[in-house]
Parts: sequence; structure tokens; C-alpha cells
Amino acid sequence: MARSRMRDIAERLGISEAAVSFALNGKPGVSDELRSRVRAVAEELNWRPHAAARALADANAHAVGLVLCRDDNSTSGESFFIQFIAGLSTALESESTALVLQIVPAVAEEVQVYRRWWNERRVDAVVVLNLIRDDPRPDALAAIGCPAVLVAGPYAPPGHATVSVDDAAAMHRIVAHLVDRGHRCIGHVGGPDELDHAQLRRSSLSAEGRRAGIQTALARTDYTEQAGYRATRALLRRKRPPTAIVFDNEILALAGISAITEAGLRVPDDIAVVSWEDGPICRLSTPQITALDRSAQQLGRHTSDAVLRLLGRSGAPATSAELDPELLIRASSAVKRLTN
Amino acid sequence: MARSRMRDIAERLGISEAAVSFALNGKPGVSDELRSRVRAVAEELNWRPHAAARALADANAHAVGLVLCRDDNSTSGESFFIQFIAGLSTALESESTALVLQIVPAVAEEVQVYRRWWNERRVDAVVVLNLIRDDPRPDALAAIGCPAVLVAGPYAPPGHATVSVDDAAAMHRIVAHLVDRGHRCIGHVGGPDELDHAQLRRSSLSAEGRRAGIQTALARTDYTEQAGYRATRALLRRKRPPTAIVFDNEILALAGISAITEAGLRVPDDIAVVSWEDGPICRLSTPQITALDRSAQQLGRHTSDAVLRLLGRSGAPATSAELDPELLIRASSAVKRLTN
Repeated sequence: MARSRMRDIAERLGISEAAVSFALNGKPGVSDELRSRVRAVAEELNWRPHAAARALADANAHAVGLVLCRDDNSTSGESFFIQFIAGLSTALESESTALVLQIVPAVAEEVQVYRRWWNERRVDAVVVLNLIRDDPRPDALAAIGCPAVLVAGPYAPPGHATVSVDDAAAMHRIVAHLVDRGHRCIGHVGGPDELDHAQLRRSSLSAEGRRAGIQTALARTDYTEQAGYRATRALLRRKRPPTAIVFDNEILALAGISAITEAGLRVPDDIAVVSWEDGPICRLSTPQITALDRSAQQLGRHTSDAVLRLLGRSGAPATSAELDPELLIRASSAVKRLTN
Repeated sequence: MARSRMRDIAERLGISEAAVSFALNGKPGVSDELRSRVRAVAEELNWRPHAAARALADANAHAVGLVLCRDDNSTSGESFFIQFIAGLSTALESESTALVLQIVPAVAEEVQVYRRWWNERRVDAVVVLNLIRDDPRPDALAAIGCPAVLVAGPYAPPGHATVSVDDAAAMHRIVAHLVDRGHRCIGHVGGPDELDHAQLRRSSLSAEGRRAGIQTALARTDYTEQAGYRATRALLRRKRPPTAIVFDNEILALAGISAITEAGLRVPDDIAVVSWEDGPICRLSTPQITALDRSAQQLGRHTSDAVLRLLGRSGAPATSAELDPELLIRASSAVKRLTN
């Protein structure tokens, strides 16, 4: 079955192609009655506007680009990506906007991809994840004129559309839970220094610690399981080791539990464990792991709303895109400690 | 910075736009010397062919579509998807072909997406994963004329380009390992009946069992962790329970280990465990889980090779796309049993 063309609709109705075009493009010159007949036949023949012709006609690609920067050694965050894409692509498709995807090993190559996509008019806008310290991407995108939505914390560079992720509020919720359970020294095993959100989570924990009058202990990883194991061991060897550790995702938490167990300590009796991401691992671990329910899918939907507004394709009011993740309290942090 | 146009190149060189077009499109009418000067300026200005104009001119979208069919309740296979996409998109990009992605909850909606993409000339071909019994997708794609590469086992419908996954060889390798360790009854916790590869793995295990003269015990799940837990419990309650269980992925394996442990049994002393997918969970579990190293990324690369050959964009010879996954033997199956 060939793709339907305006000519097919014209032949079916015994009218000119120009009349079909006027009817389908909402132009005057055809009666309302003919317009509705043309639309009915177009529907029946499953006619769709030609994406490339439409792109040339209105100078839009009707596509949004997303580049995932992914180190081969790190499989963490995969669940986040898939769920984020699920939310993003579904909402875009409802506006007939495609999602174009590329996976690269490093940020430098990511900028090259944006440049090529934009020069080829492959995308109308891009979504940028995981901002880093002195990130080259916002400036590069501004220089080539490609609209972008940054998924970022409060430190996002001004002048770009931003979907804000309030990691500080999430950290407040976690610390309140742990302090309530009697913890007076809380550790954190997070991402590398150059990642904006890793920095923000560390500074949030420090601020929460000062406010609550408790100690904090910070460790950095490259998000690999090996680094999570080593970082946890290092925290446990401190003069005053933490009695609770917050891990940036469930893979790090699992690696941390290995390190805790091998050190002869128990979860949650000796060390409480919290994961910043929920997932099957948190539910299937023994004990089950307390986790933030971040809903990457919802974040993806918020992001697509922001993209469509930026492109003027959505009349939806600018709602706040901040997420307020719940903390799912499970056995790994459930013990109430006797504080001295 | 605006996107460079042929006009910019023409102005820079003081020649006509037509001459630039002839030079860049390899047409006669310009000298070799001028052609190389035009190309040098095009390079310098980072000029790229306009994707929509090129698509209209050569009737190609220069894009390949991939739909992931994903039940909200199942997060298994996420690691497979991301790695498959990484392999697929990298190889496509090297041929300036974009990957267009959509995630849908059910196969029926997947067919709708193909239809819309094809009618809009959004893609030149699609990649189809996870064939099911009486799969509507190959026929639907043939009917609309959209080229497709099926990632499938030997039961793929004829008449389509197929990247073959040899699950039978992988099952042979797993059973040989377990029989060598003294197991005489092997269980399998796999996917639903309608999935082609789930069927193939079950029939392969049965055939291997007959060949080796051992018992087999089969259980079906919808790939959720809850179903993996229940299926494992059911296997353990059989009159002759298996002493080794093969799980279709690491999430099911983790759920199975919960069920085994709660039944008062130990891994690997009482029950050996093998996962069909490797990942951090397999390495961080206690004990570590024996797993097939399937390299979804390599499968993605093979698939993009097949797509590019199908579209006539790769002169590469048609290599066999079959993967031969290694079995990474870890503690969960390492014990040698005393057979009677």
C-alpha cells in the first residue's frame, strides 16, 4: 500500500488537488461542506502531511533532540533514562513532534551532535540533562541559536528555559527522616564534582547538617559500582563513621551494602541506607532499601511541556515543573536508634 | 550564529549559488580546483545539507525508527534497551542517519506509530524488537511498504531482513555448565508465552534436557519481579524441584533468590542460579550471579549494519549478525554437586 497523497483524495472526490490542499490547510476557497468531506476521506485513507515538505514549508523539523552522555563503565542511571524518555516521547508524540536520540561517551561529542542536528535542521530544540561545572553546552546552543530546555537545579545558567529539579527539598526530606530515627552523623556517596546536581546534593546535605546540628561525611564517585564500594569503605574507616549513608542511586546503594556487610556491620542496625533512586533493586534487596520515588517519567512529561511551550506548540499555562519526590521508607532505614 | 547556507559559501567565494550547488553535489560544470575551494569553505563554515531539503530531494528521511514496547509494571530489560540503543545510534550516526524513538505501552499502539512515521516520511526504515506469536507488525510494515529489520530468532517470518539471535546456542552453553556441575533437574523462569524468544528458550531447554537425559521445569512470568518471585516458589514446591534455575534476566534472578532464601534454601548449595542478562546486580548480589554476557550494544551495532545495508547506505558485506554470548561463571552456580 503506497502512502496516500493529496492526489488520491482528489481522485476519490472528483475534485482538484488544489481544492484538497485548501481544505486540508484550512484556507478559504472551499465550502465547509466540502472541507468536511475532504477531511473524512483524508482520515479514511490515513493521509498525513509529508514531514519533510511540512518542515520546508514551515521551517520546522517537528522533532526534538536528546543526547545521552554515557560512560561505558557506568550502567547507573539507565532506569532513569528509560523512564525519562518514556515521559518525554509520549508527550511530544501527542503534538506530532518526534524524539531524535543519540548516545555519546563525552560532553564534547554531545556539542558536535547538537551542531550537526541544528545545521541539518534535524531538530527544532534539544533537551540537556546533567549540567556540569562550566558546562559548554548552554553557550554553544545559544551561539548556534538552537532552543534548549535545561533539566537542572537552581544553578542553571540564566537565559535558558529550565525544568527545575529541587534536590535540596529532597535532601531535606531524607535528613529529617534520618534525624528522626536518631542519626547524628550522615554520610553521602554521590557523583563527581563536575556534575552540578552532585555538588548541589552535597551542599544541601551540609546545610541540612548545620541546621540540625549533626555531622556529615561526603564521598565522591564516578557512579561505577566499584567506586561506590570504595567510597563506602572509606566512610566506614573515618574516626567518626556515619551511622546512615545516602547513596545517589540504587547501584551505588547495593555496592555500599556489600562494603558494609563485608566490614562486619549490619543494615539497618549499624548503618542505615537510603537510595536517591527507587527501582526493583531497592525492593528485592535484603533488607529492602528506603528510596526517593523521583518519577523520572513525570520529569520527562514536565520537560516535554516546557519544550512545546518554548516552541509555541502548546497553549498550556506555564505550570511549575518542580517535582516533590516522596521518600519510600523501607527496612534499610527503619530502625529507631537510641541516641545518647 | 545563523546556520550556513549555500548562499554564504557563494558570497565568500564571489561565485554563483548554482556553482556552489554543482560543486557540493558532485555535478559537472565546475573545475576540480573550484570544487575543492568550495568544499574547503563549506567545511570552514560547518555547512551541512538541510535535512528536510535533502529528504525531499532524494525522497529519504535519513532516519530510522525504533519503538520500545514497555509495560509500566516491568522495569526489566531497561539495561538491555539502553545498551542496544547505544550500539544502534552510534553506528547510524556514522552514516548521518538519525534514530527516532518512541516508547509505547502495547504492540497495537506500536503499529500506529509505524503508520504515522511512514506516512509522514519521518523514517526510512524501522527496527522491530521482541517478536510475538502471530505478530501483527511484520505484515503491517510490509503492507505499508516500510522497510524493517527484525531482531529475532529463527522463527522470524520470512521476507524481512532479520538480525538473528541464537538463544538455542546460549541455552546449550548454560545447560552444559549446569550438567557438568552435577545438576539433573533444571528450571527456567522466563517470559510470557506470546513472546517468540520466551518460547524459543523454553523449547531449547526442553530439547537440551532430552539430549542430556535430565529433567526440566518451566515457569512463565510477565517479567515483573512479583511474578519472578511467585514462579520460583512454584518451582520449589514441585514434587521433584529443580536444583538449578535459569532466569531470563537479573531482576527475575534477584526475585528468585529472595524466594529461594525465604524457603530456607541456600544459593548455590541447594539451588544454583543463572541469569540470562549480566549487569551490576549480578556482580553485587551475594552470592554473585552467573550470567550470560549478551552485549546488547554489539547487537545494536549488528542491527544498524543490517538497516544500512537494507537502505543501500553501506557497502559492508553481509556478515553474520549472530552473537555468541559468553557465560560468566560466578558463585551462584559454582558448586559441584554430588550426583547419585
